[in-house]
Amino acid sequence: MEIEHPYLLFLGDAHDQLAAKTAQGIVDWRADWCLGQLRLEGCKADVGLREMSIQDAAAQGARTMVVGVANAGGVLPDHWIDSIVQALDAGLHVATGLHIRLSGIPRIADAAERAGRQLHDVRYSDQRFATGKGHKRSGMRLLTVGTDCSCGKKYAALALEKEMRAEGLDADFRATGQTGVFISGRGISIDAVVADFISGAAEWVSPDNEAGHWDVVEGQGSLFHPSFAGVTLGLLHGSQPDAFVVCHEPTRTRMRGVEHPLPTIAQVIERVVQNGSLTNPDIQCVGLAVNTSALGDAEAERCLAELSEEYGLPAADPIRNGVSSVVAELIRRFPKG
Amino acid sequence: MEIEHPYLLFLGDAHDQLAAKTAQGIVDWRADWCLGQLRLEGCKADVGLREMSIQDAAAQGARTMVVGVANAGGVLPDHWIDSIVQALDAGLHVATGLHIRLSGIPRIADAAERAGRQLHDVRYSDQRFATGKGHKRSGMRLLTVGTDCSCGKKYAALALEKEMRAEGLDADFRATGQTGVFISGRGISIDAVVADFISGAAEWVSPDNEAGHWDVVEGQGSLFHPSFAGVTLGLLHGSQPDAFVVCHEPTRTRMRGVEHPLPTIAQVIERVVQNGSLTNPDIQCVGLAVNTSALGDAEAERCLAELSEEYGLPAADPIRNGVSSVVAELIRRFPKG
Repeated sequence: MEIEHPYLLFLGDAHDQLAAKTAQGIVDWRADWCLGQLRLEGCKADVGLREMSIQDAAAQGARTMVVGVANAGGVLPDHWIDSIVQALDAGLHVATGLHIRLSGIPRIADAAERAGRQLHDVRYSDQRFATGKGHKRSGMRLLTVGTDCSCGKKYAALALEKEMRAEGLDADFRATGQTGVFISGRGISIDAVVADFISGAAEWVSPDNEAGHWDVVEGQGSLFHPSFAGVTLGLLHGSQPDAFVVCHEPTRTRMRGVEHPLPTIAQVIERVVQNGSLTNPDIQCVGLAVNTSALGDAEAERCLAELSEEYGLPAADPIRNGVSSVVAELIRRFPKG
Repeated sequence: MEIEHPYLLFLGDAHDQLAAKTAQGIVDWRADWCLGQLRLEGCKADVGLREMSIQDAAAQGARTMVVGVANAGGVLPDHWIDSIVQALDAGLHVATGLHIRLSGIPRIADAAERAGRQLHDVRYSDQRFATGKGHKRSGMRLLTVGTDCSCGKKYAALALEKEMRAEGLDADFRATGQTGVFISGRGISIDAVVADFISGAAEWVSPDNEAGHWDVVEGQGSLFHPSFAGVTLGLLHGSQPDAFVVCHEPTRTRMRGVEHPLPTIAQVIERVVQNGSLTNPDIQCVGLAVNTSALGDAEAERCLAELSEEYGLPAADPIRNGVSSVVAELIRRFPKG
């Protein structure tokens, strides 16, 4: 399943900017895939695209309307359903990462059937996977891992893809979460897969490839997070990375959503190497991606310098400084790709 | 969802005894829940129960017909569907661990609706779970873990429950796989849960309990198995065991279904303690359950003695000798339950 672009981004009547963070992520990384935004009355989000009606978007070649916004509560409002039906009738596919399955809403299912258009519910997976095999595949792989959930693993992977391409490497971002799937037009929400197939799905996400090619796989969760570590471990085994980058938010003291303290970067490196060596004995850490958004400039600089010194690895904030130092280290360690 | 007993065990026209291993497991551990077996023409399996028709079973108080046999291929034969519809019409619930959902077969779904009976597809879960919280719960927990898949974790857990009860402990087997669910009438096939909810489902399986009460949780997979380690880790975090028993098959050299070598028992103990301490810092190994079925009597005795010496832990074959030595060690280490 590939989500066709260009996209029209549907923002609905989002009650604040944060509700549209999926749309914002798409614009940040794939602005050239986005024709415009559709905002309903009362919408408080704006991702800076041209305002565009469904008819105009269709006329200008849009292929898919992406619902890039979270709805409050568990029910899809009637006026959102109206817009989705209009988009289908205008010949667009519709993609969402909502908790509700579009195909479970009769008016939408009927419209998709009538128009012969696809519904992409990227939070759900009806796809069948094999169980993980653990065989070494051809090509190279880099995985972003974290001291916690929501600490910048997707952003770091996208920044690495961009910088690696700029350095002439053949690199592809591989999405394992909803927003990542919209950004790359393919991939899988790996936390939505049936538990038996986590590593199998991860193997599917980064198949055999050319010898010098790098898959840059979006990490999920943390091996130290009591809610999600199973997903993290299956993803680590299935993606069999040659290299990994540890993502970290230095001011956080507790893991997201639970009471557990954050592990240290050293603990994460040790645990990832231990577990990752099951499917790739040569796994190694090539750098740190540090989200310093909570720090001032001087503090951030000091933080990065200290971490780099402590671990003997490049430490970069992908947003503040970019990840060129990490990519330089990757090229140094893997000169032939 | 509780599967009501007594059961009528449906063996269909199983082509050999192994195809009926689920039924055999139920008879081994819950013979008193089983009224009889129903075998169709050509059935080559026999679990030693009285032959019984659906009508006789219903008349004698059977509550559920359990399809305790695997069907060849992906399609349910028409004559099996006939039997299932008859059972529903006779007032029985029907439970299966098949790859096919009974509710997806219109004749069966209609019959269940008409008769007001339940269909239990234990390989599937439509149940909603919370994500794992990682809070310490009251009561005590023991988890069986393995060097590999299919090395006796369910059998060991059931043997431990039986022996712990014989020693006066308040103990309950907690099922995390299909056959275990039939044996205990409740539980969850944890490998069928959506990946995000593995540890949450494990928390649901062994909720808060009395201070002296032991949940004996059925383990799944292995932390060293490249296909299933994510399930194993989520189950470990969610079940937050105080004690664990390592299950091992001493003649196996490769992990089931893949090319990876078996880890050592020492590696498993170390990795389980490392990861399990996230949700229970006091986790400890209390014994080894060794499946010596491939060895002769003298070899088996020597194997158990050597392992016990090497690890300073009781090593028992649950089938050959029972697990009294392991339970004695558990009581020694946890004198107050």
